[in-house]
Amino acid sequence: MDIVDEQRDGDVVERRFTLPAGEALVPGIHWLPADASAPHATVCIGHGGFQHKRIDNVLALARMLVSELGVGVVALDAPEHGDRVSDPEAASRQLAALSSGDPEERRRVFGREARAAMARRAEVHVGEWQVLLDALQRDERWAAGPFGWWGVSMGTTHGLPLTARDDRIAAAVFGLNALRPGDEAWARQAAAVDVPVLFLTQWDDELMTRETSLALWDALGSTEKTLHVNPGRHVQVPTFERGASVAFFRRHLLR
Amino acid sequence: MDIVDEQRDGDVVERRFTLPAGEALVPGIHWLPADASAPHATVCIGHGGFQHKRIDNVLALARMLVSELGVGVVALDAPEHGDRVSDPEAASRQLAALSSGDPEERRRVFGREARAAMARRAEVHVGEWQVLLDALQRDERWAAGPFGWWGVSMGTTHGLPLTARDDRIAAAVFGLNALRPGDEAWARQAAAVDVPVLFLTQWDDELMTRETSLALWDALGSTEKTLHVNPGRHVQVPTFERGASVAFFRRHLLR
Repeated sequence: MDIVDEQRDGDVVERRFTLPAGEALVPGIHWLPADASAPHATVCIGHGGFQHKRIDNVLALARMLVSELGVGVVALDAPEHGDRVSDPEAASRQLAALSSGDPEERRRVFGREARAAMARRAEVHVGEWQVLLDALQRDERWAAGPFGWWGVSMGTTHGLPLTARDDRIAAAVFGLNALRPGDEAWARQAAAVDVPVLFLTQWDDELMTRETSLALWDALGSTEKTLHVNPGRHVQVPTFERGASVAFFRRHLLR
Repeated sequence: MDIVDEQRDGDVVERRFTLPAGEALVPGIHWLPADASAPHATVCIGHGGFQHKRIDNVLALARMLVSELGVGVVALDAPEHGDRVSDPEAASRQLAALSSGDPEERRRVFGREARAAMARRAEVHVGEWQVLLDALQRDERWAAGPFGWWGVSMGTTHGLPLTARDDRIAAAVFGLNALRPGDEAWARQAAAVDVPVLFLTQWDDELMTRETSLALWDALGSTEKTLHVNPGRHVQVPTFERGASVAFFRRHLLR
């Protein structure tokens, strides 16, 4: 984890880093309270599909968590996202297909091969997050954790398996994601999550049905899990839900 | 609204009052910040069935709202509840039937006559709340509002019609209540609610199905409405939801 840049904005320090993980050099950001000398918790934010580590909603949430809770926040570019996009044309074709709302077009662009590639990248990225947790634990200020996860949509595709298999994640915000009938592997991963979860769902999400969205929340193994549902489409989660995420991490990460 | 007693506990003043409304003298409580000299908002709390104006969860929420938001809080005993129970034996028979979980027993005790009597009392009680709002508006400190409603289960049975018909309620917390197929009158009342709503649902509520519970939230006419779902039975709403209610009223009642 090599720090390549450090800026301060008000009471928040923003450090850009690169993380050697496998064959990749993963670009990331670490936000910290300006006087981060005492041990504190860290929240990992996984961005959504076609987004990146410093997109508006990630940045706003990161600053809010640092300012209001005094925790650290880390974000990475997922494979083929942000600074890691190798084929910008393919990415914009996929985004257009997703936005078109045409199921036929979506099926064409997200064919079996594309979906298999996404699944492979997801598996790789979960490993990269574990390498980041290892790297963070080399500094005694955040070695002891606790660590939280925040990520909806693709952020849940990556964060749910991470939370299921890595005991270091003590609380997680998921959402905008679904469990389709017959997807036993995903159901098993959901059932393996046993930490407190806040799950965000949009009632008019054009990318999934209400039933499959509720089914993923229902499948989570956690004893404490809360579902928040708001009207609106996939990317229309109300900004006031940020406050709910902050309150959730306050309850579970501050000791 | 005659004040019959006033006590102070820390930063919260608790004033008991009686409210002449129709033929009834309704017992109520008004909680206030200790230095309530400036105009401020007021939250109305409607208790659940077989509860009363000062039951644990009402008292805890009232104190939290006063301390954290500096608002006033009022609560009334509903007809045949608290100090207004005229037939304690009938009330305890009903509670036993409800708790038994035996649908046959429930049908016997909550027959057509009992349900009609409850509906009549609900209609009366909505009028009593309006009389209380009129009475509160005679004091300039809380005359201008805004007013909020908090009430789940029977508290929604009373508060939803109040919110639908009285423009003074600017934001409402409802929940633990359902819309059964074919209940057009209740659906119309829900559709007439147009203020921001936080709706609390229990995933394993033994008194209603998931579908009818979601249907009531879905039927609300409000543009801003958030559903919170937690695992557990009817009376097992997690105490951390109190914090969510406080945050909701902070957003909508504090100017």
